[in-house]
Amino acid sequence: MSGTPFADSLIFFQQPWERLSSILSRTSYSRILIVCDANTSRHCLPFMMGQLNLENPLIFELPIGEHSKSLAECERFWRFALENGVDRKTVCLAVGGGVVTDFTGFCTSVLLRGIDCIYIPTSLMGMADAALGGKTGINFMQFKNQIGLFKLPKAILIEPAFLNTLSEAELKNGFVEIIKHSLIQDPPFWEELRQRPGLPDREILPELIRKSVRFKMEIVQKDFYETGLRQILNFGHSFGHALEGMLLDSTDELLHGQAVAFGIIYESWLSAQKFTWRPQWFPQIKEMMLPFIGEWRPEPEDFPTILKWMSVDKKNQHGKIIMTLLERPGLPKFGVEVNADMVNKTLEDCNF
Amino acid sequence: MSGTPFADSLIFFQQPWERLSSILSRTSYSRILIVCDANTSRHCLPFMMGQLNLENPLIFELPIGEHSKSLAECERFWRFALENGVDRKTVCLAVGGGVVTDFTGFCTSVLLRGIDCIYIPTSLMGMADAALGGKTGINFMQFKNQIGLFKLPKAILIEPAFLNTLSEAELKNGFVEIIKHSLIQDPPFWEELRQRPGLPDREILPELIRKSVRFKMEIVQKDFYETGLRQILNFGHSFGHALEGMLLDSTDELLHGQAVAFGIIYESWLSAQKFTWRPQWFPQIKEMMLPFIGEWRPEPEDFPTILKWMSVDKKNQHGKIIMTLLERPGLPKFGVEVNADMVNKTLEDCNF
Repeated sequence: MSGTPFADSLIFFQQPWERLSSILSRTSYSRILIVCDANTSRHCLPFMMGQLNLENPLIFELPIGEHSKSLAECERFWRFALENGVDRKTVCLAVGGGVVTDFTGFCTSVLLRGIDCIYIPTSLMGMADAALGGKTGINFMQFKNQIGLFKLPKAILIEPAFLNTLSEAELKNGFVEIIKHSLIQDPPFWEELRQRPGLPDREILPELIRKSVRFKMEIVQKDFYETGLRQILNFGHSFGHALEGMLLDSTDELLHGQAVAFGIIYESWLSAQKFTWRPQWFPQIKEMMLPFIGEWRPEPEDFPTILKWMSVDKKNQHGKIIMTLLERPGLPKFGVEVNADMVNKTLEDCNF
Repeated sequence: MSGTPFADSLIFFQQPWERLSSILSRTSYSRILIVCDANTSRHCLPFMMGQLNLENPLIFELPIGEHSKSLAECERFWRFALENGVDRKTVCLAVGGGVVTDFTGFCTSVLLRGIDCIYIPTSLMGMADAALGGKTGINFMQFKNQIGLFKLPKAILIEPAFLNTLSEAELKNGFVEIIKHSLIQDPPFWEELRQRPGLPDREILPELIRKSVRFKMEIVQKDFYETGLRQILNFGHSFGHALEGMLLDSTDELLHGQAVAFGIIYESWLSAQKFTWRPQWFPQIKEMMLPFIGEWRPEPEDFPTILKWMSVDKKNQHGKIIMTLLERPGLPKFGVEVNADMVNKTLEDCNF
């Protein structure tokens, strides 16, 4: 992958801690700054500290949850860093799920015009999707990831042992993105996953993560700035982000994976209308996704709000709703224009 | 300059408005968003609007002055943009001096993970220095440019007619960076400038701007992310930024160019102590810079504050003050470690 901002070697699967130690000692970093949240501070930092020999690292703890991806938290982070003498030779280790890596990736990319950052994803969502591909960002005005940039970390360390710190709900959350990857690119993989619906056994997850990483990085490498092809990774996310946006300030909780599971169902239904689908495809997808959508359901009175949120999606252009659909499972098509009527009809016709 | 984020063609000197029009019509931008301040809104936008055929552009006006490079203004800008339906296909035109281009460069680089931006510098400082080289940023916690990133605009348009909108003080402000460029790289150019001290006639400024642009872009191209060589452009800026930082919340006004003029004197004095300088070099430089420092003078009681500000310079590493000095005029040396005693002695020994 020379000549691109990528290198396979950036992602450490084998002996990850030895390789990280080697980077940290080879580069003459002045300081180590760890970003975590209350969960990873408790469940992952002790393990990590046992693997690495870190002298007196600075530790910044984010509140748990999506609300931490805010400008206010960025300000708190930058202030903490500068008050503690962080300089351009500081390296930051982001230890957590997608919220922690998205947040830290953005904050470090613009602190002193950029300091080095290394991601240590601790969730299945992070290892299989969020920590990969260099999308960083925070939410703004209740819109998801409106402020951010494309910037790869120096390295990503995958430690499957962290999967043991996760609940079934958290594993399900991340597994949705693995299903999505199979659906947009790899029909045999999709068939394989369909044969054993629901969450697979923990011991096979590392191999599924590897597959996800390989697939996602292939796409990202071809279109880092998402000018075209990379948009296929957004399958399920147009509806998904809209649901998340709507619920951001609500007491109803919807995990990102649950929102995307809904999105995959909605966008498959839409795909079936737009393209020539065999009759069994949509029911197969819906059946596969149902165990992942959780308890909450959208009500008819939510539909106008969902439409409103979809009209501010980052992929939209010239005021039109643009999304990725599937011509058939395994064949994604990005840049498809979808009008408000079709969104409404989808929301009305898909029942859960 | 292929294979780098640069292209000479990015900088429009000849028929700049025709070339800009051609870019705007070739690229199917959904919207045009202009960022200006009250000065450029009044003195430059009417001229620009006469040159370009813009349909219903959005206009965002920054308050005048360095204080606009704040997170609060970024937030106001992002809110304005999103509330007005800006999407990824929007192009932003930054019309103003260094404050406007630094601010707009940063804000647009992280809005929706980056929208296109074109710089139209209207000050001599902007045309000869600030708008070049892709350093964007805002001030934070009263430190200059602590939050920002390296990102080149799509194009930079140089219109010397805008120089006629500037006062002598504003021209002097920008001319300091031209002198700096001559001092660090081009002894014959430095001798040429020395032959006619003070501000040169307006009609020769376009040629001096061209020289500055060519020189600066050569350096920037070799070391975009300022890992080494590019630091030579910071000559005069270690002391300069410290003076600016100290005065940011004061009623005393010091323009960036005035601060750098002080910085060039201080850092030349320090260079003369560190290296073998001929006795006439320092007095020549001091004499050349004196017309550019303005009315304000640092007092002995300011010295500890100046030292404190220097200790938070972005170039510092491992807690040590690092700056660029001159082994002799025309031969810069970056990464020189300077201790607190030397800073104090410099402040004490240089009288104005």
